[in-house]
Amino acid sequence: MPRIITIGREFGSGGRELGRRLAETLGFAYYDSEIIKEIAKKTPFSEEYINEVSESGPIPLFPIHYGNSLSMVNDASVDMALDIFSAQSEILKELASKSDCVIIGRAADYVLRDMDPFRIFVYADSKAKLERCKGRATAEEKLTDKQLLRKMKTIDKKRKRYYEFYSGRTWGGRNSYDVLVNTSNQDIKKIAHSIARLFEEEEAK
Amino acid sequence: MPRIITIGREFGSGGRELGRRLAETLGFAYYDSEIIKEIAKKTPFSEEYINEVSESGPIPLFPIHYGNSLSMVNDASVDMALDIFSAQSEILKELASKSDCVIIGRAADYVLRDMDPFRIFVYADSKAKLERCKGRATAEEKLTDKQLLRKMKTIDKKRKRYYEFYSGRTWGGRNSYDVLVNTSNQDIKKIAHSIARLFEEEEAK
Repeated sequence: MPRIITIGREFGSGGRELGRRLAETLGFAYYDSEIIKEIAKKTPFSEEYINEVSESGPIPLFPIHYGNSLSMVNDASVDMALDIFSAQSEILKELASKSDCVIIGRAADYVLRDMDPFRIFVYADSKAKLERCKGRATAEEKLTDKQLLRKMKTIDKKRKRYYEFYSGRTWGGRNSYDVLVNTSNQDIKKIAHSIARLFEEEEAK
Repeated sequence: MPRIITIGREFGSGGRELGRRLAETLGFAYYDSEIIKEIAKKTPFSEEYINEVSESGPIPLFPIHYGNSLSMVNDASVDMALDIFSAQSEILKELASKSDCVIIGRAADYVLRDMDPFRIFVYADSKAKLERCKGRATAEEKLTDKQLLRKMKTIDKKRKRYYEFYSGRTWGGRNSYDVLVNTSNQDIKKIAHSIARLFEEEEAK
């Protein structure tokens, strides 16, 4: 069975960079925004709409598991979100069964739970995330620290809501993952090489 | 400055084994029950008493930081526990400044916070912890699963109380650590070699 690494992450923590480096080091496929494009091809929804919905999820009246009690949330936008999640789940399963891969976000750890993924969560303290965001922002994207912190908080809130809505698990809670990594004072390249060692075929010394 | 690795852990998760293996792999000193012996030498308390107190800590009326509002918890046994914690803190600082080391438990991450320790938390699901405990129990220690689960819960509750009383941080909460590792379906030897890579001098590829 292909080996699967899933990465959940706080905004600005470097989760995407860690995923890319892991994929490079291990020679695994890497999936992120590519998935959006695939979904757009297979559903009637636009990339923008899918992007919006697949980062936040529908707003539930109260947390439910996907597939349960749909009658309680039978509003059209929720139906569309569930359709997208369902299409996305199929695509994730298809991609994951093709080859070893690293998948960023999208509750992939939950969607692929029967395929025994290695589940990583990446986080950092606000100061470190702020530095990272400022480092990668283009000139026209420059926000004040206060604006950036607000953006971080909003995006993480959406990610949390999305993850917990579909999985019924706690986003960033240790029991949802195999490893949680704090990138605050660490070199992400080093972390990638460290985690990669878990996937090396030869027996460690 | 010596490099310090601290390990917090759930009972039965293999945190001590991980620590020992890390120390072996890296050639670091390893401190666990040795610390108790050192404290016993330097204080009027017995090893048994220190062991009991240093695993659970005094029961606070409500969480306070060590050093604050002592008047609120001025009972003799609390005073003794604080004395032991204070003696232990001195010993930990002494040991940590002597050489690179791995330290198990005792809120060492907090005590040594000014020495920039690498803070690991080790945990696992109940099934995995049960298996591990049963594997290492001697004949006369055989407990039923139910008894073992109760023991686990009680010990972890004490560790949590001890850690949170002195540090004011959350035991097992991701923001208190650099890495959290779930040993449920993992080979601890492999995890040790993976984490050791973070401490190797040569630059990763």
